[in-house]
Amino acid sequence: MYTVSVRDHFMIAHSFSGAVFGPAQRLHGATFVVDLEFRRADLDASGIVVDIGRAGEALRAILGELNFRNLDDAPEFRGRNTTTEFLARVLFDRVAAALKRGDLGAEASGVSAMRVTLHESHVASASYEASIS
Amino acid sequence: MYTVSVRDHFMIAHSFSGAVFGPAQRLHGATFVVDLEFRRADLDASGIVVDIGRAGEALRAILGELNFRNLDDAPEFRGRNTTTEFLARVLFDRVAAALKRGDLGAEASGVSAMRVTLHESHVASASYEASIS
Amino acid sequence: MYTVSVRDHFMIAHSFSGAVFGPAQRLHGATFVVDLEFRRADLDASGIVVDIGRAGEALRAILGELNFRNLDDAPEFRGRNTTTEFLARVLFDRVAAALKRGDLGAEASGVSAMRVTLHESHVASASYEASIS
Amino acid sequence: MYTVSVRDHFMIAHSFSGAVFGPAQRLHGATFVVDLEFRRADLDASGIVVDIGRAGEALRAILGELNFRNLDDAPEFRGRNTTTEFLARVLFDRVAAALKRGDLGAEASGVSAMRVTLHESHVASASYEASIS
Amino acid sequence: MYTVSVRDHFMIAHSFSGAVFGPAQRLHGATFVVDLEFRRADLDASGIVVDIGRAGEALRAILGELNFRNLDDAPEFRGRNTTTEFLARVLFDRVAAALKRGDLGAEASGVSAMRVTLHESHVASASYEASIS
Amino acid sequence: MYTVSVRDHFMIAHSFSGAVFGPAQRLHGATFVVDLEFRRADLDASGIVVDIGRAGEALRAILGELNFRNLDDAPEFRGRNTTTEFLARVLFDRVAAALKRGDLGAEASGVSAMRVTLHESHVASASYEASIS
Repeated sequence: MYTVSVRDHFMIAHSFSGAVFGPAQRLHGATFVVDLEFRRADLDASGIVVDIGRAGEALRAILGELNFRNLDDAPEFRGRNTTTEFLARVLFDRVAAALKRGDLGAEASGVSAMRVTLHESHVASASYEASIS
Repeated sequence: MYTVSVRDHFMIAHSFSGAVFGPAQRLHGATFVVDLEFRRADLDASGIVVDIGRAGEALRAILGELNFRNLDDAPEFRGRNTTTEFLARVLFDRVAAALKRGDLGAEASGVSAMRVTLHESHVASASYEASIS
Repeated sequence: MYTVSVRDHFMIAHSFSGAVFGPAQRLHGATFVVDLEFRRADLDASGIVVDIGRAGEALRAILGELNFRNLDDAPEFRGRNTTTEFLARVLFDRVAAALKRGDLGAEASGVSAMRVTLHESHVASASYEASIS
Repeated sequence: MYTVSVRDHFMIAHSFSGAVFGPAQRLHGATFVVDLEFRRADLDASGIVVDIGRAGEALRAILGELNFRNLDDAPEFRGRNTTTEFLARVLFDRVAAALKRGDLGAEASGVSAMRVTLHESHVASASYEASIS
Repeated sequence: MYTVSVRDHFMIAHSFSGAVFGPAQRLHGATFVVDLEFRRADLDASGIVVDIGRAGEALRAILGELNFRNLDDAPEFRGRNTTTEFLARVLFDRVAAALKRGDLGAEASGVSAMRVTLHESHVASASYEASIS
Repeated sequence: MYTVSVRDHFMIAHSFSGAVFGPAQRLHGATFVVDLEFRRADLDASGIVVDIGRAGEALRAILGELNFRNLDDAPEFRGRNTTTEFLARVLFDRVAAALKRGDLGAEASGVSAMRVTLHESHVASASYEASIS
């Protein structure tokens, strides 16, 4: 199995609901450094997993939808805690949709799985990984 | 599959038995930077894999049992080489026991697998991962 | 010249005023990973620059004043842009005051300079350094 | 499952064929920081996955075959794009062959899988992983 | 003294002349991860050292002049070894010229010193720093 | 001012004397990841600060004197706390002596200052820097 990974980041404000979050129930924020991994069993004719240039652009565009925002005001997240693990899944779904739309090129259809990891500090991270149906 | 990871460290002295270890047969020591990963298929009602605050406290308590010790003097490791990979397993078992005791909260019972990685330098690390039965 | 450095982090929300900030004029947030460096010409009688345990506790206490807050609501920052470089100075001044109060121990009076660095992502950081008068 | 990982690096020149590579079609180069992971279900009698000293030497020898070379001139890669993911596979195959020859010691025959990761910058990496038959 | 730092990278081929370089006399290549630091005594009216957006764009443009090239073919480096430390100076001079041209904005004229660091691997780096006259 | 830096590591056991050290008064150990920086005003005729190959070998030899040892048994450190900052100075002095002996080559006599940094974990480090007389 081959994997290719690209990294970028975004910066948001948010707050959490629930006593489990302690002081993180207050409005605060985070920088998320994002690693996006693409997996496939065989390389394409060019010898790549995915066009890393287009992958980086797709990631940047998707992070741009969230970057410099207060996620508490985002209608699509209403009633949800935008935890690091939750956001990993949100980004996974958006990249998977981009992949299906062909935003990463026709050859990228060979990608069979992805993993999205969000590093929220030097000591904590979360990720979501799944097959691409 | 979701993963959440927390990091901490501990510092110990030890020595190894066996020609394969070369100069590491002498009493020396190591800093181990530990990444503890929790995995589960779905998030709990709060939108998390595990309470990261309690996870960090549990990890700190478990590392505290080893921190600033000479492992050659630890009765529980008598006759064993406390290699990086061996210690990854020791920590895995202790965190798994804490999880079962409920130290990480009732919701943490949804955790289905864990991985413990010990970085012993900028060029070497070892880990142990398994399902939680 | 000797230097000792300790690392911790904090997570805040804020917004900036001024066209130079572009989309960062919106309410967003950041994780700041903080490196606090203490400098002195000679070691104390114990062979240290500063008691690293107390240094870490002092840093944690000072970051705790800002952690999980919206800095736009902080009276002490009214009318100021809480940029990374500005916050580096704020932290410098607060650690310097702690040092003078003796929070880091009597021996820490030998510290002659400090540097505070805030890493806001994997690609950007800012710092403030100065002598301790 | 246990994993042990060692890190080293090599520096090469190369160029790529195909419009998908854009400016990387020109002769350029890369530093590849390599993480080589060995996996096995149980530790050997010494308490290790593999002799980390011999593993490091084997990796260094294999990287030495490529280090400080222009891969466009390497007969074994004629007609192939030496992409990061392709090179991860090349290194995997060469380490697997070394393992089978016994270069890592008789005990290393217990290794059941490997992963080779090449970091080409602070924002991009690729890997190849497979079972050892 | 305040410092702001931004990071980017470039990938080149080159070779060196002189027995001191050993196998690096052959055509090979490198990824250089670049940290560009700007220093000034006081913040500007916006509370910044330099517009980090423009600084990043300026750095990207300057690295673009070298990226994906064989430096052995660059007329401006004829007869010179393009070592890591030499390239740190080249980048310093080009950023300093951009600063003087006003590419980073009028406020950036307050920058009094810069440092450029090139990381060529996980174990080696070089830098050049100087005042801006 | 130019700087070149090389990295290596060593692993030791030791204990400290003095209540300020708390549990670190017990025999424990550490991995120290070492960054060794050489500084000079101008490059030599080859375009380098120092022969990085010889610098790496010199560092490895000097770390080899301490590696895999219990520093409490080292006669040269009797009655001293082998703290991270103290060891930074020890290494500085040994590298400076090697430099004067010509171990790094005749051209290395142009080095005017050095800095030695020891990273003892992901959150703590210490260094010693000085001019070379």
